[in-house]
Amino acid sequence: MEGIRLPEAALRRFAQGLFAHYGFSQEDSAVIADVLLTADLFGIQSHGVQRLMRYYKALEAGEVAVDARPEVVYETPVSATLDAHRAMGPLVGAQAMRRAIDKAGTCGVGLVAVRNSSHYGIAGYYTQMALKADLVGVCMTNTEAILVPTFGAQPVLGTNPIAFAMPADPIPFWFDAAMTVVPRGKLEVYAKDGAPLPPGWALDAAGRESRDGGAVVAGIEAGARGGILPLGGWGETQGGHKGYGLALMVDLCTAVMSGGLTSPHMKQADGEHTCHCFWAMDYGIFGDKAAQRQAASQLLQELRQSAKADGQPRIYTHGEKAWASRAEKRMKGIPVQEKTWEEIQVMAEALGLPLPQ
Amino acid sequence: MEGIRLPEAALRRFAQGLFAHYGFSQEDSAVIADVLLTADLFGIQSHGVQRLMRYYKALEAGEVAVDARPEVVYETPVSATLDAHRAMGPLVGAQAMRRAIDKAGTCGVGLVAVRNSSHYGIAGYYTQMALKADLVGVCMTNTEAILVPTFGAQPVLGTNPIAFAMPADPIPFWFDAAMTVVPRGKLEVYAKDGAPLPPGWALDAAGRESRDGGAVVAGIEAGARGGILPLGGWGETQGGHKGYGLALMVDLCTAVMSGGLTSPHMKQADGEHTCHCFWAMDYGIFGDKAAQRQAASQLLQELRQSAKADGQPRIYTHGEKAWASRAEKRMKGIPVQEKTWEEIQVMAEALGLPLPQ
Repeated sequence: MEGIRLPEAALRRFAQGLFAHYGFSQEDSAVIADVLLTADLFGIQSHGVQRLMRYYKALEAGEVAVDARPEVVYETPVSATLDAHRAMGPLVGAQAMRRAIDKAGTCGVGLVAVRNSSHYGIAGYYTQMALKADLVGVCMTNTEAILVPTFGAQPVLGTNPIAFAMPADPIPFWFDAAMTVVPRGKLEVYAKDGAPLPPGWALDAAGRESRDGGAVVAGIEAGARGGILPLGGWGETQGGHKGYGLALMVDLCTAVMSGGLTSPHMKQADGEHTCHCFWAMDYGIFGDKAAQRQAASQLLQELRQSAKADGQPRIYTHGEKAWASRAEKRMKGIPVQEKTWEEIQVMAEALGLPLPQ
Repeated sequence: MEGIRLPEAALRRFAQGLFAHYGFSQEDSAVIADVLLTADLFGIQSHGVQRLMRYYKALEAGEVAVDARPEVVYETPVSATLDAHRAMGPLVGAQAMRRAIDKAGTCGVGLVAVRNSSHYGIAGYYTQMALKADLVGVCMTNTEAILVPTFGAQPVLGTNPIAFAMPADPIPFWFDAAMTVVPRGKLEVYAKDGAPLPPGWALDAAGRESRDGGAVVAGIEAGARGGILPLGGWGETQGGHKGYGLALMVDLCTAVMSGGLTSPHMKQADGEHTCHCFWAMDYGIFGDKAAQRQAASQLLQELRQSAKADGQPRIYTHGEKAWASRAEKRMKGIPVQEKTWEEIQVMAEALGLPLPQ
């Protein structure tokens, strides 16, 4: 069910008003709203305004440290480590990437590691900040344990996405992907529809392939065995050990480097203690920036124009779908599922906020 | 056929003598030999002394620019760009990573991009240099086009391996993987055995799955359509677009940043013009190095000790097999296949070098 469409500005105003209601400054409320709206614009509805209800409940329950702010606990000219003190993830992320961008402005590169943060939305939001500054951006985050290592039966690593972006014309390279075959949300969709999972996605408690998305998700929530396979699937034949290794690299670059909690330990009694990293790189440190940008654009164009498989209309480069989605949604409005619209009405009523129209 | 085993020192001496014969200095000959021997020790026989014959033929044919040396064409305190002038890849790689390590010593991080290089052996050789300096190491390289992008039929990107290493005890994290499902060599092994390829590895000229390794390799060599699938396989269901995106990232970090030739263009009339990147990072720029090293070691240990899938004896972390292989081969010698042994005899005879014993 597609539900209705609402203008970006109206949804943005509503989200901003909701966060301001709980004591966030206008500026901070705008940042949190922008992280959610950017996900919706890019077509990543799971990370958009449909999450507002979750934030609302957490804020109502007093589970969000509204006054918490990240603290710089270690710093060099090219690097910083932040203890986020469990502040709102989007505020942590925006502040950390801003610091990495500033360092890239003076040193050519800036590397920031963050511990004790919370869910920060799409990793690609922060690499997009680097793009706006004409920089290469890298962003990674650990998550609760959900990925079962190759030949294992127990989730140890998170979905651990890697985001990487580089400026190019007419559309940048904007890559943002979980190092599991699929994120948890995909299993939930299949579970809701009662449809069997595709092969190669998930494992049961014995470490055997499972087609039952509901059972796998329930197991993860219960802290039991079973979970999602790494990119590359089961065993080593299709490269599952590679996805496992990339996910492990993410925990090293986030939790280990920041001195925070690794995926198997980040879920604590008071909630998740997420770790991130934010790298910004001025690609001009290698030479002629205009030539590099042109070369990147050409490679992306060559990929899009290369020969298609029989029956396939086109080859995409990463970011193309997101940029097209944003253009379309700015024209026609942002789709809001029926359930999300009902939740927005509940929140508007409870907080005395005007409904987005 | 396992063939015989020879002591590391004897093979090293032979390889070193071979390169010295063609005019490389003792020091340079030792570096090239070390890159080959390290691959053999780590159990990556495809990149070890079995390549000597290929080097011998290229040197005999005058195809190797023995006197060529990489030139620094751009530099900042944290970065450098090298034009390798088609020098021997192992010499280029060792010099570039040494420069990255030196920069990490003064700035905390060093990033070096290289263009116009040649095949440099295993990417993980250079991250191992970073490990020896107690640094995190990253190394990537593009290769001739062999990877077909998602929904495509034509190879555009290379196998484009990513190597990442971080110190840990008792064994470091040492990851080195092609962003294709498998490297080209695996297809060649199946072709030699006349065995059908596993599903999900390769495509025919129409972009449909192919189980015929010989036909796929022949097509790649002829510059025709068809090729190897990205990590994650066909389409998007198993995440093939993720492997495609990671391979594309490698071409951006190597060819585009260095101002060199991207995978679809690096094969020129005078041979391959390979591009690499070498990043060294002092993880102490984020805080307490001893604590981080301990945390990395603990995470690796937790993975190894986590619950196994039914019937699986153990879970490996990346580098464990290579380190075990090295210990075993230092004890028992390096296995040399019968064909490689015959080639060594031919080269020894032709060059008047003593046979390794």
